Amino acid sequence: MSVYEKLESLGIVLPEMPEPLAKFVPFVRSGNLIFVSGHIAKRDGKPWVGKLGETITLADGQQAARGVAVDLLAVLHAATGDLEQITRIVKLLVLVNAGPAFTEAHLVANGASELLGDVFGERGTHARSAMGVAQLPFGTCVEVELIAEVR
Amino acid sequence: MSVYEKLESLGIVLPEMPEPLAKFVPFVRSGNLIFVSGHIAKRDGKPWVGKLGETITLADGQQAARGVAVDLLAVLHAATGDLEQITRIVKLLVLVNAGPAFTEAHLVANGASELLGDVFGERGTHARSAMGVAQLPFGTCVEVELIAEVR
Amino acid sequence: MSVYEKLESLGIVLPEMPEPLAKFVPFVRSGNLIFVSGHIAKRDGKPWVGKLGETITLADGQQAARGVAVDLLAVLHAATGDLEQITRIVKLLVLVNAGPAFTEAHLVANGASELLGDVFGERGTHARSAMGVAQLPFGTCVEVELIAEVR
Repeated sequence: MSVYEKLESLGIVLPEMPEPLAKFVPFVRSGNLIFVSGHIAKRDGKPWVGKLGETITLADGQQAARGVAVDLLAVLHAATGDLEQITRIVKLLVLVNAGPAFTEAHLVANGASELLGDVFGERGTHARSAMGVAQLPFGTCVEVELIAEVR
Repeated sequence: MSVYEKLESLGIVLPEMPEPLAKFVPFVRSGNLIFVSGHIAKRDGKPWVGKLGETITLADGQQAARGVAVDLLAVLHAATGDLEQITRIVKLLVLVNAGPAFTEAHLVANGASELLGDVFGERGTHARSAMGVAQLPFGTCVEVELIAEVR
Repeated sequence: MSVYEKLESLGIVLPEMPEPLAKFVPFVRSGNLIFVSGHIAKRDGKPWVGKLGETITLADGQQAARGVAVDLLAVLHAATGDLEQITRIVKLLVLVNAGPAFTEAHLVANGASELLGDVFGERGTHARSAMGVAQLPFGTCVEVELIAEVR
């Protein structure tokens, strides 16, 4: 099954590539690597505000991370013109807006990691770091940065 | 206008490459990428201490980020011998020392991003992640890490 | 002295490559770079829990960081089959679980950086960013991510 068939089977419609909300570009390609900017979680087109461990549940945090992964796919689609050109998801950096007692950033991050695995299969397995940070732009609950390898 | 003429027109004199204050080197080149260590904001040669949202203003945070970008240029100059060899600023990681309610890390980060855009033009546009962190080395208000592509 | 002789002289026995505790892989190689996932500090095989500046000393944090570096070497050994294939430790990202007043993340990070320097010599010098974060997976005190260059 192609990546696009897989997305369809998951009921995922790729959005337009999100517009950066500050002075940067969505991605830069250098050699065979695409560096995708940290993208923040959104709901109904607006920043999905919340702090894990305080004002938002783990389940919502995971959904937010999954949603960011969909946006990252939209960026990779725009960057390549064809997601089949992606040979590997190399690395994620997962930033979780967290109170000082929230110790499950890795479970939040799984929301993004699982989607990428579902869509890309073996090519979607990746290295990763996850952490709880003090705050994120716009008060959003999750931000994810990605490096992918392209043919 | 060359990068150096642009710097002169902005009234920027590149400092000596800052000395690392711990057990690391300012940059490592691998292939066509230069990985520049996270550099901390300084004022009058000393760490610029402050926490956004608590003890330092947004405007000062932006100035601090801009100052770090100048230091990063000094590192790139030392790394290449000629900033014209830089073909792209690839990615920034912008760490903002922030209280748990400060949601404008992206605006602080713009202080660095705008300078790089001013100096390098199209080559200066870059991918980026920005976040508020619990603390930074020496209590400094901003730290920025950079990846650049070189000819 | 080879890397393995150096490890032996330091009394270090490389462990098995640690199993990821969530949905990611320990490393991904792309071209000549190996991206190693953020690994968390452990003691007696379990997450080494603590927050710098609050519930754990600087000296313990440094030991924890050193221990993570040993685990990262175990990953690089598994990734390459021979640590002599590593031509450079390129970059570390050092995440320190820290209270909002702890300003010595760089000293914690030295625990990892010094070990890599001891083992690899000149090849072990690296770029680095260090920061205090709000929390880490499992409440662990230190997490370190690494990029290495391989022949």
